[in-house]
Amino acid sequence: MLFAKIGILDEELNYQADRFVGVRNGRIAYIGAEEPKEDFGERYDGAGKLLMPGFYNAHSHSAMTLLRGYAEGMSLSDWLNKKIFPFEARLTDEDIYNGTMLAMAEMLRFGVVSTTDMYFGGEANSRAVLETGTKMNLSLAVTCFDGRSAEELPQYRETVGLLKTFHNAGEGRVKIDLGIHGEYTSTPKVVEGMAALAAETGLNMHLHLSETRQEHEDCKARHDGRTPARYFYDLGVFDAPTTAAHCVWLEGEDFDILKEKGVTVACCPVSNLKLASGFCPAPRLLDKGVSVALGTDGVASNNNLNILEEVKLFATLFKAATADPTAITAKQALWAATRAGALAQGREDCGVMRVGAKADLIVLDQRQRPYLRPCHDMVGNVVFAAQGTDVCLTMVDGRVLYRDGAYTTIDLERVIRNAEVSAGRILSEL
Amino acid sequence: MLFAKIGILDEELNYQADRFVGVRNGRIAYIGAEEPKEDFGERYDGAGKLLMPGFYNAHSHSAMTLLRGYAEGMSLSDWLNKKIFPFEARLTDEDIYNGTMLAMAEMLRFGVVSTTDMYFGGEANSRAVLETGTKMNLSLAVTCFDGRSAEELPQYRETVGLLKTFHNAGEGRVKIDLGIHGEYTSTPKVVEGMAALAAETGLNMHLHLSETRQEHEDCKARHDGRTPARYFYDLGVFDAPTTAAHCVWLEGEDFDILKEKGVTVACCPVSNLKLASGFCPAPRLLDKGVSVALGTDGVASNNNLNILEEVKLFATLFKAATADPTAITAKQALWAATRAGALAQGREDCGVMRVGAKADLIVLDQRQRPYLRPCHDMVGNVVFAAQGTDVCLTMVDGRVLYRDGAYTTIDLERVIRNAEVSAGRILSEL
Repeated sequence: MLFAKIGILDEELNYQADRFVGVRNGRIAYIGAEEPKEDFGERYDGAGKLLMPGFYNAHSHSAMTLLRGYAEGMSLSDWLNKKIFPFEARLTDEDIYNGTMLAMAEMLRFGVVSTTDMYFGGEANSRAVLETGTKMNLSLAVTCFDGRSAEELPQYRETVGLLKTFHNAGEGRVKIDLGIHGEYTSTPKVVEGMAALAAETGLNMHLHLSETRQEHEDCKARHDGRTPARYFYDLGVFDAPTTAAHCVWLEGEDFDILKEKGVTVACCPVSNLKLASGFCPAPRLLDKGVSVALGTDGVASNNNLNILEEVKLFATLFKAATADPTAITAKQALWAATRAGALAQGREDCGVMRVGAKADLIVLDQRQRPYLRPCHDMVGNVVFAAQGTDVCLTMVDGRVLYRDGAYTTIDLERVIRNAEVSAGRILSEL
Repeated sequence: MLFAKIGILDEELNYQADRFVGVRNGRIAYIGAEEPKEDFGERYDGAGKLLMPGFYNAHSHSAMTLLRGYAEGMSLSDWLNKKIFPFEARLTDEDIYNGTMLAMAEMLRFGVVSTTDMYFGGEANSRAVLETGTKMNLSLAVTCFDGRSAEELPQYRETVGLLKTFHNAGEGRVKIDLGIHGEYTSTPKVVEGMAALAAETGLNMHLHLSETRQEHEDCKARHDGRTPARYFYDLGVFDAPTTAAHCVWLEGEDFDILKEKGVTVACCPVSNLKLASGFCPAPRLLDKGVSVALGTDGVASNNNLNILEEVKLFATLFKAATADPTAITAKQALWAATRAGALAQGREDCGVMRVGAKADLIVLDQRQRPYLRPCHDMVGNVVFAAQGTDVCLTMVDGRVLYRDGAYTTIDLERVIRNAEVSAGRILSEL
């Protein structure tokens, strides 16, 4: 496909008008102001449109689409124990497949090309990703409240199985990560076992870190004052390329630890507000040079997968939280939702407008939208004024998966129906 | 028009499926589960759609659409003094008309039927409102840094003129309010004069209150420890029905003052984040029984007029700010954006799904939207998952002004072009 005379956000997210971008064999093969001589097949008219890297969701629980709006306005413990856990306990593999299919449809609608997911049912998840053409870094997070070793846990064994069947399936679209749910839901013995598996396999690690004040303080009480970051550091977890979700209550040396080990923070501002977790110290992380990506978290605490909402919130919330209107620029916010997320997923050749990179691209339709005019600042417009629904084309590895309301790999009506059948059955069992 | 077999949010914002709603002579004339016998003209198929009250924007500066994205990531004083004020100093009446026309197009796109506006150029604003069929409470805020009395100020005289020409024009769609920009931009003498004019005319009052910490603290330093709320109270301003924008730094007796005088707080969460002003104590206001409505503020600090973004932020931000996930329910957030705003505008018969009320209604299209399914909770879906662009019909006083991408009173292409000509000319002069 040749995107012709289209505005783009270039490698550094600077706006360039009237560019030509050619896609071939799943990769960006040409970017220029002149029309290329080669034939790229379909010519896409770029008038009034913006081509940019797709979004990489750095922390999600995709199948939780089934729980959209299921539990509102409750305390965190009631929310988890009375609503979320009982619902999740009834999920079958088919339910997880149905929920993930719905999530993939929603992601593509909002320009998300890839997601770092932590959930149950790795095979069901992987099938949905392979079938829809999207990308996912999937971890089955270990949890353990007894004396077992990591190897004895079902998630460990399932992960090892997935490594053989699904890791790098779909030409690398599916990646299996290792997952530790959190400090408070596992034991040092298990954490050490996961760190050992990471060292052996070279896989990425995904975990929740200091999401709530209680989790953070309880960890310190349990472990001689050591914070969750220090705890995982001491157990060797961060020797693996790690995505740490939330990081709301970081303190002291935590910042240095994350910087030293190259941990990516998956900031989930909407979820942190909705669950009353607090405010991630994102400006300080960025000042320290820690990589910060953006996540939607699960739909149950959001309640959608529209990452552009996270982008706007990321670029505004922390200005107020630090009383500094210059904190976090629009460009930093877009970077977090694109390149930073791709790098965190170990997708070095993704999330950037560069010849040779994977063609994970989205088009924003900017025509007939009063809320995008005048345009004094294109990046400002995308971050602060644009809507997730402005996405009119989502391409993954050069393949168009969503365009102008239609999906090429998803029967939306069927996907919605199946998800509602699953949700309805579970509700009837509760 | 008869909305047939449509979901609605009723008088108390509870969801009712498959209702019939008849509109006649600009008002809601029928609501029921049975098809009415009377003929309401066009039959609107409600399958997969939700009918609800339109949004009332409680604080805006509409013509600032011209400045969208014009000044990003700056300190508040640089933003105002180096960018906003010099730009605004060059605005002609025609520019203000052009900016307001664009704002009306954007409002209607996002389901906003009415806005409480504070800006220059009352005639230009009023013309745009009358021409487009929208509603506006318009105030020309007095500012004064010398010894003049209120009567000597141009905004006072212009307001008195507007009262004769535009107050209640368009069958009450345009209302002229009195405006005091703020404590820090006027004098007690002027404030007293405005309070006297309010007492004489019975008009509403609109002002900025404790938006920034500096404004709040400087006021106390200037006025024997009295906060801006106490200052305006003592000068009799709150004897008028008042909308106080922002109210971020309220303290102590301020809450009692606002409650006692029935002041409506126009909470502007996006703007308060983007300008790093801080967090409005909205949960405490609601607990006190103070009416809280929602405002977008001007586009320069937002950068759009999508009030559904304010709704979601209002229902999430203050959970984190108070560490209480039960703070501000979804229904309270929707109420703030609808009925509370209408009441603050003195539009007693607006903003509510009730027979006899003005038919200021919007339709949300919920079809083929993966992000709205499953639907365990309709109000939760509207507040946390829906998109402003889901609005597919906006009706004001029973007249359809926006429907499925098309406007009935606005030539969108011309409006955008005119706004860009205005913005371009001003930029060229700077």
